[in-house]
Amino acid sequence: MIRKQDVQNEMMRAVETVRRTNPMAGSITNNVTINFVANAQLAVGGAAAMVYLPEEGEILARSGGAAYLNVGALLPVHEQSLPVTAKALYDAGKPWVLDPVAIGIGSLRTKLLTQMKEYRPSVIRGNASEIIALAGLWGLDGGTDRSAVRGVDSTDPVAAARKAAVSLARWTGGAVAVSGKTDLVTDGSAAAFSHGGSHFMEKITGAGCSLGGVIAVYAAAASPFVAALTAASVYNLAGSRAERRAGGPGSFQAAFLDELYQAAAKDIAGNPFELEEA
Amino acid sequence: MIRKQDVQNEMMRAVETVRRTNPMAGSITNNVTINFVANAQLAVGGAAAMVYLPEEGEILARSGGAAYLNVGALLPVHEQSLPVTAKALYDAGKPWVLDPVAIGIGSLRTKLLTQMKEYRPSVIRGNASEIIALAGLWGLDGGTDRSAVRGVDSTDPVAAARKAAVSLARWTGGAVAVSGKTDLVTDGSAAAFSHGGSHFMEKITGAGCSLGGVIAVYAAAASPFVAALTAASVYNLAGSRAERRAGGPGSFQAAFLDELYQAAAKDIAGNPFELEEA
Amino acid sequence: MIRKQDVQNEMMRAVETVRRTNPMAGSITNNVTINFVANAQLAVGGAAAMVYLPEEGEILARSGGAAYLNVGALLPVHEQSLPVTAKALYDAGKPWVLDPVAIGIGSLRTKLLTQMKEYRPSVIRGNASEIIALAGLWGLDGGTDRSAVRGVDSTDPVAAARKAAVSLARWTGGAVAVSGKTDLVTDGSAAAFSHGGSHFMEKITGAGCSLGGVIAVYAAAASPFVAALTAASVYNLAGSRAERRAGGPGSFQAAFLDELYQAAAKDIAGNPFELEEA
Repeated sequence: MIRKQDVQNEMMRAVETVRRTNPMAGSITNNVTINFVANAQLAVGGAAAMVYLPEEGEILARSGGAAYLNVGALLPVHEQSLPVTAKALYDAGKPWVLDPVAIGIGSLRTKLLTQMKEYRPSVIRGNASEIIALAGLWGLDGGTDRSAVRGVDSTDPVAAARKAAVSLARWTGGAVAVSGKTDLVTDGSAAAFSHGGSHFMEKITGAGCSLGGVIAVYAAAASPFVAALTAASVYNLAGSRAERRAGGPGSFQAAFLDELYQAAAKDIAGNPFELEEA
Repeated sequence: MIRKQDVQNEMMRAVETVRRTNPMAGSITNNVTINFVANAQLAVGGAAAMVYLPEEGEILARSGGAAYLNVGALLPVHEQSLPVTAKALYDAGKPWVLDPVAIGIGSLRTKLLTQMKEYRPSVIRGNASEIIALAGLWGLDGGTDRSAVRGVDSTDPVAAARKAAVSLARWTGGAVAVSGKTDLVTDGSAAAFSHGGSHFMEKITGAGCSLGGVIAVYAAAASPFVAALTAASVYNLAGSRAERRAGGPGSFQAAFLDELYQAAAKDIAGNPFELEEA
Repeated sequence: MIRKQDVQNEMMRAVETVRRTNPMAGSITNNVTINFVANAQLAVGGAAAMVYLPEEGEILARSGGAAYLNVGALLPVHEQSLPVTAKALYDAGKPWVLDPVAIGIGSLRTKLLTQMKEYRPSVIRGNASEIIALAGLWGLDGGTDRSAVRGVDSTDPVAAARKAAVSLARWTGGAVAVSGKTDLVTDGSAAAFSHGGSHFMEKITGAGCSLGGVIAVYAAAASPFVAALTAASVYNLAGSRAERRAGGPGSFQAAFLDELYQAAAKDIAGNPFELEEA
């Protein structure tokens, strides 16, 4: 199995490459958190571009270094643009992140997430309930269609999603990130558990979405596993630091973006995590 | 008439129940302020979910504790999703908040607000001009179709909307909240006047929309009248407190979310208001 | 040529008129930065209204003092609403600002920007690459269709866009603002170079869009040239001041809105700029 020190070296390289090259990671994402996704991507050193139209999704797939597709707060236009863009990303061999937010709510979301299976997202990011439900929808081990999803909140602990996460990663050949108190990142072979963060991250909308956008930025410069772990680590580090100087969720969000911007590569790689066999 | 002390006890119970149970109050709302609505709902202890599609509106109506419908910045999809969702809320007996923002601007908005009459929103929240215009549109006492609405700004003082607010509340059997320098909340029987707030609330977009979203959160845990008065009180309290440590509208908005989050139940119930016969 | 002192007097008058009269500058703009556009317009003293539907665009054109049209993150509804609104503005003789963001990306954007030529926007605001590309699309001097546009980032220095900016201003009879390290504002006769700002403005999404919205606010109270220069000056002043008390892009954005709100008319007019023949 890969050594922790090697993973940390790759994480530092990802952080520095992103800051030096400003890779573009385009998004099709929901309007609730679209501004926060873009600002988080900029804060870590990437570039952002958000689109809705199918043609623009294809252009973004061809021209960006990676992309982020989120199925939250669907509009009619997403019925076409999401699968077209996913296909374009897959065909072009570009890394892309799928966020199956609120899986189970509505027939269009179910249809879109079913279609996504064949385009094998490089990284899937969700909370435990979403990851379990997606594995269920795709007929993979560890999944269930009975996982209770309540809107965008998770009702399952991260550990309960380990089997589903590993199955999904083995299917896609990429990585899966399960967000929770401790974050789990796996590529189907290794499993990393990243610590930190803040209770305020549940009190601002878009902590999960913007993490997905930031994973896409790092995925333009590193493997899916390293990209997901680097993003989880900088989120956990910045969340802990921001909480210390926040008086509530409003000042926390501003401080969190500041800390994403300020975090040194060695501190990100040094943020606590354990590495195990998946 | 209900005693002030009893109202305050119910307000404290609403605040505490929301913080303990995190009720979901879904929204169909405009894209300008959608992020602020969600963050304000989270800050007071609720859960948020925003949708656009008719089917998702119906799901949200069935699964949430309450809902918030706002007719600002309409998209084509809203022509179906708003009435379908309002009907589903009414049929399910779920409390919901209508925000007739910018009433009078455009034929679709007028059509939608006309349709809403029969679904009897539990709470109607608007500025004085909007409340007067809605009563006029619905053919109720105190309304007029000549009320000057300039976009989202009110040109009438709150007191001028008292008769319209009472008429609307008696029609719906719920409550009406009129936002202004002093806020008026009535259920057609009692009228409460809530004091506080900040001049900065007119310098950030979405103070009214997010108040509507917060009323919906409390409506999942209290009567329409108590929900609207609790929300007006926490807004007035948090606004006054945030102004003291703000250097302008940017820092005010962050501080305001902090204060929403920090406000103690007894301070919210103790924020100054008078109670009269309507 | 106009004297600098006269320009500065007009700038002060624009700032004060806006704060006294709160002119409405409506927008059709992208969802990524729509909240920031509105908040920046409010911070300088204007009023905001955002719409999507063609009919509402026409109403906004008739009722507002000016308008801001931005072609970023297009939705299907924009295919109709943007040209209909631009025509209504032109027919009504209302000042309006065009933001050709991400010109070159997608056939709808190209079609819309081609249509805009005949409606002669009072102010065109973009980065150097966008201004060069728009002059190229419209067949004017200084333009090229080979200008490298990468999403919303500029790959050309402001000076390279001078000829294109002058050509565009002469075509429209209005003004052109080129955003960059130093901002260029020209009406085809005079050219002003405005200094200041902050490196953080590239680390928050919407610095350009919100500048466009603020130009529209000032255009309701001043000539296109003075409106664009006043907006560039308050942005450069507020950016410099906000950077001094920011720890990163999150606190910068809040501080920036504070500084927009606080900036005195004489400081805005006194922010460094040079004035030359175009």
